[in-house]
Amino acid sequence: MNDAPTPADHPLLITDFLYRARDMFGDKEIVDHIDGEEVFRYTYRDYAERVLRLASALVEAGVRPGDRVGTLAWNHRRHLELYLAVPLAGAVLHTINIRLSPDEIAYIVDHADDAMIFADPSLADLLSVASERRPDMPVVLIDPEGESLDAERTLDSMVASAAPLASPVPRRDDDLAVLCYTSGTTGSPKGVGYLHKSLYLHTMAACLADGHAISERDRALLVVPMFHANAWGVPFAALMTGASQILPGPHPTPAHIAALIEKERVTYTGMVPTVAVDLLAHVRGAGTDLSSLRALVLGGSTPAISLIRDLEELGVPVFQGWGMTEISPMATFSRPPAATDDDPQRRWELIRKQGRLLPGLQWKLVDDDGNVMPHDGISRGEVLIRGPWVATSYYNADHPDKFADGWLRTGDIGVIDEHGYLTIVDRTKDLIKSGGEWISSVALEEALLEDPAVHEAAVVSVPHPRWQERPVAYVVGDADIDVEAVGARLAERVPRWWLPEKIVVVDELPRTSVGKLDKRRLREQAAGTPDLWEATTPKNSPVPVPHRDS
Amino acid sequence: MNDAPTPADHPLLITDFLYRARDMFGDKEIVDHIDGEEVFRYTYRDYAERVLRLASALVEAGVRPGDRVGTLAWNHRRHLELYLAVPLAGAVLHTINIRLSPDEIAYIVDHADDAMIFADPSLADLLSVASERRPDMPVVLIDPEGESLDAERTLDSMVASAAPLASPVPRRDDDLAVLCYTSGTTGSPKGVGYLHKSLYLHTMAACLADGHAISERDRALLVVPMFHANAWGVPFAALMTGASQILPGPHPTPAHIAALIEKERVTYTGMVPTVAVDLLAHVRGAGTDLSSLRALVLGGSTPAISLIRDLEELGVPVFQGWGMTEISPMATFSRPPAATDDDPQRRWELIRKQGRLLPGLQWKLVDDDGNVMPHDGISRGEVLIRGPWVATSYYNADHPDKFADGWLRTGDIGVIDEHGYLTIVDRTKDLIKSGGEWISSVALEEALLEDPAVHEAAVVSVPHPRWQERPVAYVVGDADIDVEAVGARLAERVPRWWLPEKIVVVDELPRTSVGKLDKRRLREQAAGTPDLWEATTPKNSPVPVPHRDS
Repeated sequence: MNDAPTPADHPLLITDFLYRARDMFGDKEIVDHIDGEEVFRYTYRDYAERVLRLASALVEAGVRPGDRVGTLAWNHRRHLELYLAVPLAGAVLHTINIRLSPDEIAYIVDHADDAMIFADPSLADLLSVASERRPDMPVVLIDPEGESLDAERTLDSMVASAAPLASPVPRRDDDLAVLCYTSGTTGSPKGVGYLHKSLYLHTMAACLADGHAISERDRALLVVPMFHANAWGVPFAALMTGASQILPGPHPTPAHIAALIEKERVTYTGMVPTVAVDLLAHVRGAGTDLSSLRALVLGGSTPAISLIRDLEELGVPVFQGWGMTEISPMATFSRPPAATDDDPQRRWELIRKQGRLLPGLQWKLVDDDGNVMPHDGISRGEVLIRGPWVATSYYNADHPDKFADGWLRTGDIGVIDEHGYLTIVDRTKDLIKSGGEWISSVALEEALLEDPAVHEAAVVSVPHPRWQERPVAYVVGDADIDVEAVGARLAERVPRWWLPEKIVVVDELPRTSVGKLDKRRLREQAAGTPDLWEATTPKNSPVPVPHRDS
Repeated sequence: MNDAPTPADHPLLITDFLYRARDMFGDKEIVDHIDGEEVFRYTYRDYAERVLRLASALVEAGVRPGDRVGTLAWNHRRHLELYLAVPLAGAVLHTINIRLSPDEIAYIVDHADDAMIFADPSLADLLSVASERRPDMPVVLIDPEGESLDAERTLDSMVASAAPLASPVPRRDDDLAVLCYTSGTTGSPKGVGYLHKSLYLHTMAACLADGHAISERDRALLVVPMFHANAWGVPFAALMTGASQILPGPHPTPAHIAALIEKERVTYTGMVPTVAVDLLAHVRGAGTDLSSLRALVLGGSTPAISLIRDLEELGVPVFQGWGMTEISPMATFSRPPAATDDDPQRRWELIRKQGRLLPGLQWKLVDDDGNVMPHDGISRGEVLIRGPWVATSYYNADHPDKFADGWLRTGDIGVIDEHGYLTIVDRTKDLIKSGGEWISSVALEEALLEDPAVHEAAVVSVPHPRWQERPVAYVVGDADIDVEAVGARLAERVPRWWLPEKIVVVDELPRTSVGKLDKRRLREQAAGTPDLWEATTPKNSPVPVPHRDS
């Protein structure tokens, strides 16, 4: 090879998606809703015009290449405008989690060293601490739909004042395009920087026929918050393919989501299982028509088979994706093979698995001693992943324990079967080491969920004076749930030494800002229970047996 | 950014596809046929075992990283083994066109400086000149299915003698993986080198839901020759997604193709329109069941609307792809949008267009003076394309006129509409400049094809003493075709000065080695016709009018 450019030098920039949407799919729509009611509808052509003006205004406002520009906003069209305008201005879109406290937000804004922040007026108070600490950082309010803000500079006034950007501020495809902090259940929030190239390839993977298969035919509803790993990357996929986008606005409820699906003939959406459970309950009562959906993708935690089955029986095809902020976020997709078309039970079981690795990525299972484990459906190990959209470090932070030779240590313990389907069996930090043997909190939760009286279950590890660690279970269940009976039925399904020290009935399980089970809070709660070990009876004493032979 | 690895550094190597196929889709099949009869069937698991042994044997035989290893073979499983074994050995797969003459092949083999060549015994004679010139270059015979070759070294003996390769010979993703010479209608054949990264991204594009959408559910029939731009890249796409592959063997006829589709429940295939015309005729007679097909992709030249319609009416969904060897080869895909679901005529017209540019690529239309033309459905210009799977130079050859600032000059004149659908209206070298004005040979061919008596048509330019150039038409038609009547009907559909100087009826049109119309031969033939201008009558005299206003 010589010094002449090669195809490998061609940059993959997400800013191209804007031009693609405008030039090929100019008539496709973005629809904004508030409380389930349509409030605005415009085309990609008009969207692109506003984005290019906003990008130009950002440059005029002094935003320089590589600067971080924060957003603190719900899922609406102006947030989507910032998604492309900030990278077009050569800057880095920093989406801030609106469910964090003012102190946490101040930490993140400081760490990211944001040059400017755009905020929904209803959320602007969350910046109180950050603004105190960074008095020179401009906070630009995002005009709410249908209101005229009384401020010198707002997003709309910037759009109005500027001419469209003639061409994107030049960037390389290994420059950062987006920055997103993990909601981290331990330690300080950690920033994950997404390169242009990473997001471009992630978008292509999302649109594979065997992936989320997002296409020109789709009308995508963005339920996943846009501050959470780019709403799983769906906005970029929609722009690349020309899918229309339906935005639910602030505080979407299951009733709103159901109404939007029916009214807007939504074909594709994704959500965490908890939201899907509520949606299902609502739809059953209201009789909403969900027949337009070709895919409802669940992610964030493992769905119950009953949820997959019940949605399918309503005519909604369900899939599962697994990933994390550090993987942009998609790593796997659980699409059942043709062989299961006539075998619903097997299909549901496959969809319940986390799925096959997307092309472009590589993975391995590694045991505690660093040995690579076989993909035999039995051997377990921590899942390590690498690839062009997998983080190799955190943003301006050193966490060598999380990265190894270019591999991301996901912290998830998995089993991969001979067809390449991953099943997450635990988090490294959720494993319970009892008397020298591992107990799977996930397996215990599943066993609890087989009990009809149990609706939700969470198992955590607590320190134990004799056995190092022991499991404690938290359950949400029937109003008249009988804990003794639940324990007795559980004893029929798991080894005796797995039985939790205590089964605690609660009204609801604590969740993190992105809707995942907050096991950290449960662990703290469990460890702080004064009478915890009083419940220990001989029947619960750990009797270690080898995992493989059991 | 610092010196630590970033996600952008993760290499995209096509050798990964082998491991993916083995580890996730080990039960999927490769099926070999000869004359429409199944002769061998094995799994990706067994395929991978042989490929890894073959790769190891290549290294043992002295093949070094970057060496070119030629193949001269039909579409069968051992050719598919070489597809992956050669890159795994760190070498470059050089697929040689079996329809070239021994002299042409000798030129190509010399230019590529092949270190070794694998050849089907039935094709080995084509290497006579090459072997004379390069006596030290080993030619390894590929064992025909079911035969034992009496030779010291054959492909099977190499597989049998070697242990599986422990890991791929290390390569960067901007190293060459494949080399393919264009069948070039002008000058010497030119080599196009495909980088690992180029082919990886091309494969992802092929598997997009809005692209060929190749998926785990597919059973792909490889009709396009494997020496022609990697059979459009389908073998790599099938390995990446786990689609099964059906290989038709030597000399596939329309009857064989039809039989394979029916027997093997083929879901996806691609072919040039000429082959599809013959397939359609056969199926109509034989009543073959093609209902398993979810996509028949046409490429290589523009299909007639009647072909698209007739196939659709047989229940076969038709698509069109456009590309060229220099684009790996896919550039566009013509997938009709949802809006045409209930409007067959509009759908067929859209499928007949070359389609929308695949994500990852960029294009522009440029007029003779280098001006970028708008995408308005009217303005025409040469199509320039760039992207990670678009050549930026030829292999060890200087052709600056073909490349400009990283853009490939495709030589095709196109129009792009406001929805991003490209229509190729001419080749730069097929345009006819008559009396200072351009005549489109493609438009003339289309007008001729509207005549029910005309089955095929080709229009070429010939030098003219007065008007510089004038069109001459060659047609295949009904047995009792009346040329005068064809000319009269044509006069009703095109401007008077477009009417060909002569309409020549022939039994068949000449084709290149990959089945495309060979306009070079027609031009030579037309220019050599002694009485060509005698047919010129006043009615045919060019009366130039401006194109845009006509």
